[in-house]
Amino acid sequence: MLIGFDEAAAFLRGCKDAVIITHRNPDGDCIGAGFGLKDILAELGIRSRVVCHDEFPSPRYDFITETGAGEDFEPQTVIAVDIADKKLMGKYEEIYGDRVQLCIDHHISNMDYAERTLLNGKATAACEIIYDLAVYMGVNISKHCAACLYTGISTDSGCFKYDCTTPRAHEIAAEMMRKYDINFARINRYMFDVKSAGRMRLESKVTELMESYLGGKLNIIAVTKDIADAMGVSMDDLEGFAPMTIQLEGSEVGIFIRQRDNDYKCSFRSANDVNVSEICQRLGGGGHAKAAGCQMTGSLDDVKKQLVEAVKGALGQ
Amino acid sequence: MLIGFDEAAAFLRGCKDAVIITHRNPDGDCIGAGFGLKDILAELGIRSRVVCHDEFPSPRYDFITETGAGEDFEPQTVIAVDIADKKLMGKYEEIYGDRVQLCIDHHISNMDYAERTLLNGKATAACEIIYDLAVYMGVNISKHCAACLYTGISTDSGCFKYDCTTPRAHEIAAEMMRKYDINFARINRYMFDVKSAGRMRLESKVTELMESYLGGKLNIIAVTKDIADAMGVSMDDLEGFAPMTIQLEGSEVGIFIRQRDNDYKCSFRSANDVNVSEICQRLGGGGHAKAAGCQMTGSLDDVKKQLVEAVKGALGQ
Repeated sequence: MLIGFDEAAAFLRGCKDAVIITHRNPDGDCIGAGFGLKDILAELGIRSRVVCHDEFPSPRYDFITETGAGEDFEPQTVIAVDIADKKLMGKYEEIYGDRVQLCIDHHISNMDYAERTLLNGKATAACEIIYDLAVYMGVNISKHCAACLYTGISTDSGCFKYDCTTPRAHEIAAEMMRKYDINFARINRYMFDVKSAGRMRLESKVTELMESYLGGKLNIIAVTKDIADAMGVSMDDLEGFAPMTIQLEGSEVGIFIRQRDNDYKCSFRSANDVNVSEICQRLGGGGHAKAAGCQMTGSLDDVKKQLVEAVKGALGQ
Repeated sequence: MLIGFDEAAAFLRGCKDAVIITHRNPDGDCIGAGFGLKDILAELGIRSRVVCHDEFPSPRYDFITETGAGEDFEPQTVIAVDIADKKLMGKYEEIYGDRVQLCIDHHISNMDYAERTLLNGKATAACEIIYDLAVYMGVNISKHCAACLYTGISTDSGCFKYDCTTPRAHEIAAEMMRKYDINFARINRYMFDVKSAGRMRLESKVTELMESYLGGKLNIIAVTKDIADAMGVSMDDLEGFAPMTIQLEGSEVGIFIRQRDNDYKCSFRSANDVNVSEICQRLGGGGHAKAAGCQMTGSLDDVKKQLVEAVKGALGQ
């Protein structure tokens, strides 16, 4: 059931011993939302614990998790943050999936699996909603809490770069700088600039694999198992590379291909106006207008040929 | 003479046939400030022309310059934007350097060369000052003008990433999104994500030249003439690479070295607390706490040895 700030506030004020679930493969928004909400509950005198199927990446998020995930107690309240589908809870789905009392989320695709869902599909991040909820409730926001919530807004918006950035995200950032003196430059450095030596080498190598088609409007990077083996990386290490396919001047569509056991996983990105979700749907996949995907079988050359043809059609060529 | 908004406003309202000078090697802030101010003057019924020693980079800034730099007329008013020192005017220094009637700038190092200087050394960008001036004057701001001024704020702050970002920069961004519906995501894509094929290859190659010292706290990238020749690039093509030296996890100081005819140009960056300006001063150079430089002579090996020793001292090792 969708609820508003009034009901969410009343629920939080009345809750006790809460577990806060974040999604698997945790990112800045769910980690910031989890630990930020924990700070807010602590201000209300309510103890809570933040849980995740995976480890929180370290040292990247140490400045958030340094306050501790919380004591071990038998939860009486179950809260999910930034989780659109209970499947994303990983091992916690079995334990808590059917008894989430409050979900705070910004994904328009939210499955409405919780008893109460505070949803704003237009918000940049779950952290944006949690900040506004805390302001609505008049709860004191600590500097640590502000840093947590800023991190979620900054990471989900690509540091205020992408379409999903709201005016409200900027206003909150301004308030956080004025009122809480957060070290936003250091946070952004760790979120966006700092890379491991392995990641840096990998980016450099992956760049070299880029091939241009359709007069440079389509760029494809394909990583086969042989190439990954030669680089000494697993396919998991190749997460987050799809945006590189539309970095090249003049590109309209980019496809990042990763070979799997029985097929090729193809991640599409659109630079401007091409709807890649429509292209992927025709190829049996789906997604969003600017980021979508599909699976393809056959030889890599055949796969590329089919992809080029599909994009050619979408470009009206 | 330093002036406030009241005097700057009165001067602009009373001026006629203005030339607006931007600095050589033009960036998003001076281009945005020049064309944004031209729009504002046009609203006041005043014609103006934007000039620059260099060409405005195309197609990168076409969305700003598409309104035209302005007609050819004998200027009766001379305005400089984002120019701390008249030397930065290039060929326009000789023509206009000694008769700048109004300078609008955000560099604390401004040389006060103009008759009137509207200076805010804490502003993120000259565009931030010009936006606030336009609001102060109650001038109508067009969508194009808003896009110009947003571009300056976004580029000078590294898309709201760096220390120099002010709360006001965020507030202005929020206002521009709410009131003027600018296509900020497309602007940011062109400013931060899109690269030429040459630039992309170059980054990939330059990454491979990185060497780590002092347990990874210092990273050096040195490009000799031989290497540049082999890459097929000039030393000018290697502008803007210094920040790459502090991208590596664990790095505190980075140095980007470029060989010149008779010496090595060394650009320092600090990731956190090391003051690289102090290091560079001891080596005969200077700059800011987080970005500084010096020139060194001798063999590359000797230069590196001296740099490593200097940084070692600053790190207290």
